[in-house]
Amino acid sequence: MQRILARLYAALLLGAMLSTFPAAHAATAAPIASTPADPLADSDGYDLWLRYRPLPVAGRAHLPAAVVTAGADSPTLQAARAELQRGLAGMTGKPVAIGGGARAGSVVLARGADLPSGLAETNAVRDALRPLGSEGYLVRRVHLNGMPVTLIAANADVGLLYGSFAWLRQLQLGTAADGVALASRPQLPLRVLNHWDNLDRTVERGYAGESIWNFWELPGVVDPRYTDYARANASLGINGTVLNNVNAKAEVLSADFIAKAAAVADVLRPYGMRVYLSVRWSTPLELKETKTADPLDPDVAAWWKRKADEIYKTIPDFGGFLVKANSEGQPGPQDYHRNHAEGANMLARALAPHHGIVMWRAFVYASPDEVKAAKAGGPVHDRAGQAYEQFQPLDGKFDDNVLVQVKNGAIDFQPREPAHPLFGAMPKTPLVMEFQITKEYLGYAMHLAYLGTLFEETLRFDTRAGNRDMTVAQVLEGAQAGKVGGIAGVANIGSSRNWTGSTFDQANWYAFGRLAWDQRLDARAIAREWAMQTFAPDARVVDPVADIMMRSREAVVDYMTPLGLHHLMGTGHHHGPAPWVNNLERADWNPAYYHRAGPDGIGFDRGAKGSDVIKQYAPEVARRFADPATTPSEFLLWFHHLPWTYKMPSGRTLWPELIAHYDRGVDEVAAMEASWQRLRPFVDARRFDDTARRLAQQHREAQWWRDACIAYFQHVSGLPLPADVRAPAQSLQYYESLRFPYAPGRG
Amino acid sequence: MQRILARLYAALLLGAMLSTFPAAHAATAAPIASTPADPLADSDGYDLWLRYRPLPVAGRAHLPAAVVTAGADSPTLQAARAELQRGLAGMTGKPVAIGGGARAGSVVLARGADLPSGLAETNAVRDALRPLGSEGYLVRRVHLNGMPVTLIAANADVGLLYGSFAWLRQLQLGTAADGVALASRPQLPLRVLNHWDNLDRTVERGYAGESIWNFWELPGVVDPRYTDYARANASLGINGTVLNNVNAKAEVLSADFIAKAAAVADVLRPYGMRVYLSVRWSTPLELKETKTADPLDPDVAAWWKRKADEIYKTIPDFGGFLVKANSEGQPGPQDYHRNHAEGANMLARALAPHHGIVMWRAFVYASPDEVKAAKAGGPVHDRAGQAYEQFQPLDGKFDDNVLVQVKNGAIDFQPREPAHPLFGAMPKTPLVMEFQITKEYLGYAMHLAYLGTLFEETLRFDTRAGNRDMTVAQVLEGAQAGKVGGIAGVANIGSSRNWTGSTFDQANWYAFGRLAWDQRLDARAIAREWAMQTFAPDARVVDPVADIMMRSREAVVDYMTPLGLHHLMGTGHHHGPAPWVNNLERADWNPAYYHRAGPDGIGFDRGAKGSDVIKQYAPEVARRFADPATTPSEFLLWFHHLPWTYKMPSGRTLWPELIAHYDRGVDEVAAMEASWQRLRPFVDARRFDDTARRLAQQHREAQWWRDACIAYFQHVSGLPLPADVRAPAQSLQYYESLRFPYAPGRG
Repeated sequence: MQRILARLYAALLLGAMLSTFPAAHAATAAPIASTPADPLADSDGYDLWLRYRPLPVAGRAHLPAAVVTAGADSPTLQAARAELQRGLAGMTGKPVAIGGGARAGSVVLARGADLPSGLAETNAVRDALRPLGSEGYLVRRVHLNGMPVTLIAANADVGLLYGSFAWLRQLQLGTAADGVALASRPQLPLRVLNHWDNLDRTVERGYAGESIWNFWELPGVVDPRYTDYARANASLGINGTVLNNVNAKAEVLSADFIAKAAAVADVLRPYGMRVYLSVRWSTPLELKETKTADPLDPDVAAWWKRKADEIYKTIPDFGGFLVKANSEGQPGPQDYHRNHAEGANMLARALAPHHGIVMWRAFVYASPDEVKAAKAGGPVHDRAGQAYEQFQPLDGKFDDNVLVQVKNGAIDFQPREPAHPLFGAMPKTPLVMEFQITKEYLGYAMHLAYLGTLFEETLRFDTRAGNRDMTVAQVLEGAQAGKVGGIAGVANIGSSRNWTGSTFDQANWYAFGRLAWDQRLDARAIAREWAMQTFAPDARVVDPVADIMMRSREAVVDYMTPLGLHHLMGTGHHHGPAPWVNNLERADWNPAYYHRAGPDGIGFDRGAKGSDVIKQYAPEVARRFADPATTPSEFLLWFHHLPWTYKMPSGRTLWPELIAHYDRGVDEVAAMEASWQRLRPFVDARRFDDTARRLAQQHREAQWWRDACIAYFQHVSGLPLPADVRAPAQSLQYYESLRFPYAPGRG
Repeated sequence: MQRILARLYAALLLGAMLSTFPAAHAATAAPIASTPADPLADSDGYDLWLRYRPLPVAGRAHLPAAVVTAGADSPTLQAARAELQRGLAGMTGKPVAIGGGARAGSVVLARGADLPSGLAETNAVRDALRPLGSEGYLVRRVHLNGMPVTLIAANADVGLLYGSFAWLRQLQLGTAADGVALASRPQLPLRVLNHWDNLDRTVERGYAGESIWNFWELPGVVDPRYTDYARANASLGINGTVLNNVNAKAEVLSADFIAKAAAVADVLRPYGMRVYLSVRWSTPLELKETKTADPLDPDVAAWWKRKADEIYKTIPDFGGFLVKANSEGQPGPQDYHRNHAEGANMLARALAPHHGIVMWRAFVYASPDEVKAAKAGGPVHDRAGQAYEQFQPLDGKFDDNVLVQVKNGAIDFQPREPAHPLFGAMPKTPLVMEFQITKEYLGYAMHLAYLGTLFEETLRFDTRAGNRDMTVAQVLEGAQAGKVGGIAGVANIGSSRNWTGSTFDQANWYAFGRLAWDQRLDARAIAREWAMQTFAPDARVVDPVADIMMRSREAVVDYMTPLGLHHLMGTGHHHGPAPWVNNLERADWNPAYYHRAGPDGIGFDRGAKGSDVIKQYAPEVARRFADPATTPSEFLLWFHHLPWTYKMPSGRTLWPELIAHYDRGVDEVAAMEASWQRLRPFVDARRFDDTARRLAQQHREAQWWRDACIAYFQHVSGLPLPADVRAPAQSLQYYESLRFPYAPGRG
């Protein structure tokens, strides 16, 4: 016993030494929690993928003991240096010197314009830097005054920061320091988070506690956590953040609130992040400073111009506005019979002198006229087609500094949707992809659902616009007509200690950021590198963790919305199954509107005899989706209403096939759970236990989804359960009776 | 530079070693964040006063290296051992052995029934234990098998836990291990926190983030933080917690919610803490399980009995119910023309078979009949007298397991109130003191206001009940007729990393807990011991910190509500000054109702010619309060309406005296700020900076209170500002125009 204690003690001593060191030296305000060397020492998850745990002794051999900077200093350079120092000290357990002359093995940070004179490879580095733009970076082994050093070079300061993070990532993955050679630049200049954070610190669709923005105490009190937020985002290359909910309040543009945003912007600036604000269309009217919110009214335009000028006085690099207009009850230009382009352009002109942008959301369903007609009993056109109908005709009508932000699918962040038909259909308009990182429809922070596969699937969707290869990623990159867009993710970040409410939800922030930087990265590769940094670069952990992640989203699809079903969730909170709901004010808020299940069959006919929105896709795609036989089975019931007896490629008919998917979803969660249990020896008790408890709850909820949906579809179809299918545990009435008045994430 | 780095490195190495060690060894689920030895290493405040930082080498000399337990093990004993191990390892930097035979210097934990056979002082220890009850403890140096050891002894397990914490506290204060001799027991058996936490995780009057109770994820996911919550409370002797808001929802008594409460109870149990629930009077009616909520209806009583039985099945040591009935819109027995005793007793009888209790709140203002009359334009009687009027006549009518919970003052947790007249007036009823630890009316978590002085002032208030010495503390202890009550504190705890929103708000939790254990402790002594544990046992820190704390609450009184003024704050959120408000539905919600300022003077006449509630105090006290000349100046305008020209003991008239108080309040904050600035060399950067920013904001807000109130009182009095008095910075209209729609802590 004494010997065990002594050994453990020695190990802890080493570990503590390694881990505590960098935090104490770091120049940033907030120390990342220290991470003991013992791989099984508990982690509370605060340090995310930036754990910088000690490398095996062999891996430390070529790690630099000094960080040297060339050229003038800057806050961004200081941030890069501090991160290198923190990371290297963590991984080597040795102090890291800053400044002084370069020695053999040093890491040298230099802008292209400041390459040190003794560099042997100056011309080659300059050539390599040329195509890397203002955000790209280069990491290579070079010779300085005859000594081998690691050079991190870039055309601008933020590239040096990104390069430092990229290099540290490679080291964390176990790459030998002298073996790293990197050159990368992002394709999309706009890579932003959208916080749906309210001024009262609640977060719409937030499942990780309240907002990290303590708007009440800002600007007087500035939480050191904002610095760690900036570090985490910069490590991925996320370069902007919209602080507040798209369902915005007029007070956001008050002088008091602008001062709060400015205090946040001051923290984020050295990390290359700009601050944006969501604005409410009717702000000047609500503040009683104009008599209308009509975009063509000169007083209104002048008000916005003055307001933009005011903002840029305190936030000189303010990014711009995100606008949700004429959507879900929000006011907008259509209230004045102006179209979205007229609305967006008015705001854009206020921002243009300051180089700000407008991100105008295309998530608008049903125009005011349609709503009026619907209230009078008229039909509402298929919601899946409404954004296209309103926006596609405006292609080419937007000012240069307007980007149209389009959700990945045409309904609303469902577990699976086909890509939005607007991608490829607006070649003259820069589009911003809007992904939802927070899991409004995929089990909150409780279910393990890795979204890397969802993001990848959408980005790789070939729109066939112009009858040629044209993936969604290419559309965003402006491959059609040079209009380069961006990518936005609805944040899953809150004040929860581990940021995202669960360990595995950190991976969704990570995957979003990595794909925002490079839309061609592979979801599995991202999962693996996340697992290596988050747990350990050990195949015994990484392989099973990546495997769990890669199958996880499909499991959710199977137990919630298989075969292209969608929008079956509970009203308002969106928790749990509620396919039976059919009494909501708007027809297209009802699950029954979407699944259309009855004795005759199930699914939404979006073909020529149905809502006909398939034709919004490019002809090649539309042809494929028009025929059930050529429609991928994962979108089958999205596009087609089919009889229960429809013969599936599996040989089964639709009804047992549907049940099989539900069962597979539940079985997959059970398999994920079992897989996780085998990881007990390799994961610290705290994160192991938390994840195990969440998986157990996910299992129960998957079973509930399966049981409730089968009970319901059996009820409306009148079909018997096939032999060997387990009957739902409870009656349909029981599932219908469940209520969740205190579910988190309400708006 | 290299030498400095090396030195710093060596220091860090040592510190990290010392601090990381105990967490890794601790038996509890959640490690308290590690605390580096460097006194200036940043602390995020998570470890509260349980930091266990390394003692100077001299102080470590006699610290045990082993913890030995006698008798059967238990979860509570395990918790005590783990804490001793954590604390000793932290303070000595050496591993601490558990179990095995006692060696010289060991610490020995033993119940009175399990005293080890080789103990020289067995009889003396047994004698000393006899008066210590089931929660008291004894710590003394004894001889075991001839070796000196430290004995922690108690009659029951929880006493061993309390004794362990008490001993560790003494060590943290710098007392030599061989010099500690303790014997203590609490006078009040009921020492509870009241969480005003809602089921949606908002916290009414919470300024430290959302609720620490993640009700949504419970019972599936159990946050390790609950364990640290239990440790912190047990370290003070707090032995119960009411999980949810007194403005309770019917769902609290659903089977789902009881399972959540049970999961929390399982975590708290080893730490001697019982779980209680706030219940809504009309629960069975709202759940549609009875047809009425009339306490005399047999179905209602039977429902509550069944519900109590159900609760005790999963929470066998459930504490009982806290009830807010017929108060601020909550339903209650008066809705059925039954009195509070009839209501409380019905619940008490459901709990009695399980030894549960009812804490029935006396915070009821205006009976339903009065409200009805007021709506018809009738007068509402002085709110300060209403609780007494409704409750005093019921003295002796409550069942044995009912306690009446009385706020410290008769209005509502104002910066200063005279003690509630019910104290001393209900000798036959056990009373529970309700303090508010969260600073609803004292500047949220932004203002530094140490409440130890407020608690002490109330507890020491001599009620003169029975015309003899009878402090409020004695009343609670049952000195009148043997009815022993308790003490409750409305928690200031949230999910903020530092628990309470600011470093100094931790002191209010601490002071509440210490005074709950021993009502005779001195507020300054508590401040000093808190400062030693929270910062360092160093006079250069402790003296100025204690000084800041001791003057802080009086500063708030001066800049908010000097000379007995009260209830001058903003509507709803209670942030900032609003003495002008006079348009609220109920007269007694208006600041103007309370200050009654006009050209003739200011203050509330509660004497015979006024509301006459002074007569609710015992005769000696009432006589003193009836005459302005014998009324303490801090209560002057609480009890008297006086002309502006009233001559104060200072020689000044009331108007300049009032202004002088406002000015003194602001000046005091400036002095506190300056004092804090001088502490920069002694406090870690993170806590130093956070506190400095808060004090700066407090200074601005103190100035705002002073300016707005002076502007208003000048306006209503028509008096000129005395010479040399600085005019308010803004117009009264400006102050009146301020709105705070997103203030935290709404119900």
